Amino acid sequence: MENNIKIPKTRNGRATFNLIVDTTIDLFYKKGYFKTKIKDITDSAGIAAGTFYLYFPNKLSLYKYILMQFQHDIRRTIAESVSNVKGRFEKEKEGIKTFIQYSLDNPHAYNIIWESLYIDKKLFIDYYDGFAKRYERGLNPSIKDGEMHDVDTELVSYILMGVANFIGLKVLLDLGKNNDDIDEVVEQVMSIIKTGIFKD
Amino acid sequence: MENNIKIPKTRNGRATFNLIVDTTIDLFYKKGYFKTKIKDITDSAGIAAGTFYLYFPNKLSLYKYILMQFQHDIRRTIAESVSNVKGRFEKEKEGIKTFIQYSLDNPHAYNIIWESLYIDKKLFIDYYDGFAKRYERGLNPSIKDGEMHDVDTELVSYILMGVANFIGLKVLLDLGKNNDDIDEVVEQVMSIIKTGIFKD
Repeated sequence: MENNIKIPKTRNGRATFNLIVDTTIDLFYKKGYFKTKIKDITDSAGIAAGTFYLYFPNKLSLYKYILMQFQHDIRRTIAESVSNVKGRFEKEKEGIKTFIQYSLDNPHAYNIIWESLYIDKKLFIDYYDGFAKRYERGLNPSIKDGEMHDVDTELVSYILMGVANFIGLKVLLDLGKNNDDIDEVVEQVMSIIKTGIFKD
Repeated sequence: MENNIKIPKTRNGRATFNLIVDTTIDLFYKKGYFKTKIKDITDSAGIAAGTFYLYFPNKLSLYKYILMQFQHDIRRTIAESVSNVKGRFEKEKEGIKTFIQYSLDNPHAYNIIWESLYIDKKLFIDYYDGFAKRYERGLNPSIKDGEMHDVDTELVSYILMGVANFIGLKVLLDLGKNNDDIDEVVEQVMSIIKTGIFKD
């Protein structure tokens, strides 16, 4: 496996590995990456200092692992939720709802993902570039099928990621009004995107 | 002035104050807020350690000052650029172009603004909540004037901020293709927003 992480093979090892990961997610969320020391992680997890190094060569490798897990988890959660939905527009609506619900269920996700910008800008770039490229691949067939206008799918993927992220932030941080009912917020947002904002 | 900053009255004082601010913006961009020590700032600026405290009680107050300056600067730059543009759609297009150009001219702005999420979440919330509320006030008359559909202007402001921020990131970090000509990118994005993405 890349990133020099040792995934344990035994059940006990996996339990310890997961304990380290969960403890670190919690600490990264509360204190941020830079203020979290490996000693804080092992102290909070109640394990010996050396145990950390059985699995992770350093804090950065653990951060990268957590970032990759979030990415997989978000993609898989969205893919599952839209798999039985028919039509590109309805799929996008369901996808954005799922993304926002995911952010509420995992409030540390935003923090930890965006912190990559400060830890190693390349991680941030890879994260969003990777997300956009997969998004594009999903959108392209919808143009052929006549469900979407013949638009630049790269730009559309950034537009929709921007909308999902900022509406998600609004709900997550409770900015402005009407953040209680995610379904209703996303219905309205998608209706605005469908009808358009500006008159001719 | 709030935030316990002492704005100097003399010309020399202002020069030193501005030197501290500019040096700090550079350091915050390169090393981030947490890794930048006040000693790094005074060393880089070539001033005595005590001089910092003539103006700023601590690093956080200086950060808040810089964040506020960016907010004012971005708002003013956009307001100036759109002041002579007619029509809400054309104003939005010009505003997004200006915002992206600003981000390219001030590549540290994104980093420093978003870092507020890790320094004090309330700063991040105030930043975007304040931005959205002003945005809304600008949009409301356009509904009365019949230039916009009768949409929820709060949601529209988050949609447009999300689009501007993610397209800006794409150009700034050179994600994907076609990031050379900002005008062309924004033309296409606004055309997608106007025509819509999805067919009925």
